[in-house]
Amino acid sequence: MTTNLNRQWRVARYPKPEEIIGPEHFEWVSEPVTEPGDGEFLVRTICLAPVPAQRGYLEKSHDSFLENLPIGEVMRGRGVGQIVKSRHPDYQAGEIFVGSLGWQDYSIQRPRGSEFVFSTKKVKNPIRPLSTELSLLGQAGATAYFGLLETGKMKAGDCVLVSAAAGGVGSAAGQIARIKGAKKVVGIAGSDEKCRWLIDTLRYDDAINYKTENVGDRIKELFPDGIDVFFDNVGGGILNAGLANLAMHARIVICGFISTDYSPGPHHGPINYQCIVYKRARIEGFVVFDYWEQYEKAERDLFEWYRSGELINAEDEDKGLEMMPDSLASLFRGGNTGVKICRVSPDPDIF
Amino acid sequence: MTTNLNRQWRVARYPKPEEIIGPEHFEWVSEPVTEPGDGEFLVRTICLAPVPAQRGYLEKSHDSFLENLPIGEVMRGRGVGQIVKSRHPDYQAGEIFVGSLGWQDYSIQRPRGSEFVFSTKKVKNPIRPLSTELSLLGQAGATAYFGLLETGKMKAGDCVLVSAAAGGVGSAAGQIARIKGAKKVVGIAGSDEKCRWLIDTLRYDDAINYKTENVGDRIKELFPDGIDVFFDNVGGGILNAGLANLAMHARIVICGFISTDYSPGPHHGPINYQCIVYKRARIEGFVVFDYWEQYEKAERDLFEWYRSGELINAEDEDKGLEMMPDSLASLFRGGNTGVKICRVSPDPDIF
Repeated sequence: MTTNLNRQWRVARYPKPEEIIGPEHFEWVSEPVTEPGDGEFLVRTICLAPVPAQRGYLEKSHDSFLENLPIGEVMRGRGVGQIVKSRHPDYQAGEIFVGSLGWQDYSIQRPRGSEFVFSTKKVKNPIRPLSTELSLLGQAGATAYFGLLETGKMKAGDCVLVSAAAGGVGSAAGQIARIKGAKKVVGIAGSDEKCRWLIDTLRYDDAINYKTENVGDRIKELFPDGIDVFFDNVGGGILNAGLANLAMHARIVICGFISTDYSPGPHHGPINYQCIVYKRARIEGFVVFDYWEQYEKAERDLFEWYRSGELINAEDEDKGLEMMPDSLASLFRGGNTGVKICRVSPDPDIF
Repeated sequence: MTTNLNRQWRVARYPKPEEIIGPEHFEWVSEPVTEPGDGEFLVRTICLAPVPAQRGYLEKSHDSFLENLPIGEVMRGRGVGQIVKSRHPDYQAGEIFVGSLGWQDYSIQRPRGSEFVFSTKKVKNPIRPLSTELSLLGQAGATAYFGLLETGKMKAGDCVLVSAAAGGVGSAAGQIARIKGAKKVVGIAGSDEKCRWLIDTLRYDDAINYKTENVGDRIKELFPDGIDVFFDNVGGGILNAGLANLAMHARIVICGFISTDYSPGPHHGPINYQCIVYKRARIEGFVVFDYWEQYEKAERDLFEWYRSGELINAEDEDKGLEMMPDSLASLFRGGNTGVKICRVSPDPDIF
């Protein structure tokens, strides 16, 4: 094992605010695999999941919830892997592990306190493919679940709008809204193909192509009584258009603002924000990690819906660790349909 | 009585968006006082209370919660008055009445359904001065009470910031925060005199003069651990400065946005709105009328705090119905300290 090489993407330089993140910001290096110390175990990476927020690791001064990574560090990122060597009695070689593996083939891990249960855990009953732990049963599914149901207080009969609806979080959010009895679920996406997929495969009631349609007009047409819950991943003009069409006591869940991630700022809030008063609406931000205490319930629900076929797990897979910088960049170009997964090695034969 | 004249301010023309509302938008007319019909009663106006939102009656297309008044109508407005003639068995001449009296000496009233209990009612135990029904026990006090405690979920130990703190609603909001055990209450106002008044008379912990001080720097200095509840009446740059200094899970109560009432728009939301996610914060709008069902509790609390001397009722009185357009205009110029009241006739000798 120690003769194996550990390929890694290390942080090489920080992008300028308007610069799309890509391979040029990372260095591709190899080093020998390290031995686990006492109480540690070695994990071989199977899949990684890039998410837009990871860009925050490479921003020098960012009032965000992420710490910045120093130049030269292995890029941080969540993944699923298999334990290949262990010096911890509770973790056995062969077991499946989810956690902060980093953009590399191998990582040394140790158990975290219970407060990290959501981000780092042994997978007791792994399901096929293992990437499901990073998509539907991982951060994307949990973000959709808690954002919609806890922050957004979505309830049966609500009219729900989801932006970036074909993305990793959005594709789950719209389906959960339907399962929970939404009166209407409409998604916004960036191509006719994605829109058709939302309607035909994910069973959204309708979809808006923001690149070819007038989003404001279409929202008005599709929500004659206004939007009850707006699950927004985008910000900018799409948030404005949604705010102009709210129902009374609407909830706007701010999950992200990918439309402004590459504009230099200052980033203006939505121009229609005064409707917050007129419509007694609430705009609320959340971060999925805040809900880790309730994660088991989310996982149970998501798995049950998935098992029964009500909820489709949409993944968009790139192949090879060398793809990771491009996989991350693709999220900012609308390149993915479903949760972006980067497969580093095949699922082991454990099923 | 019918030989008396009823002086009135009628709507003459709508102001342009950037035009401060004033006497030139109204017509000053007199007509004979009308007789109440069956089930009606005649009320003589004692005091009126202009509020910034009344400007909405004179805006042609406004996605607000107010209906526009047609040209030629008597200007709408809340007031306290005395019943002088009644043809309704439950309303007796001499009794005190609060409701939508309009900008006039006399109005014909009839009981409203119970859903209007908050805006129209007979005052069973009037207190001196009767204007208190329009200030502390009226819309200003109730707005501060429900906005802070219900929408803002303010609780003991919170650090609270109030903008337009010397205004009608703000002057009550800061005091209620102190009474409810806030760790710190800071007000923002437009003169050193108002700031001193906030600290010395209303017992705010500190105050910021937005005309002479750097609001962002001062907020940062006064809230080293961040703001828990920001009761904002102002919007614009002051809202931005507050959002840059939030504590985790902060609540921002949008009571108004008087800073942008005269800018032609579109009105951009706060530039720091992305902190809604970073700080898991909530921005929520409200309209006091939504809380009418709980109004009795608010009135009880407010009266009790007032009676015990903990809560000072701050009023800023203009004299004479002819002043009403100027009284309303003064609100947009920061001309008032406390709740603006326009006294139309003296309190009757009922105490």
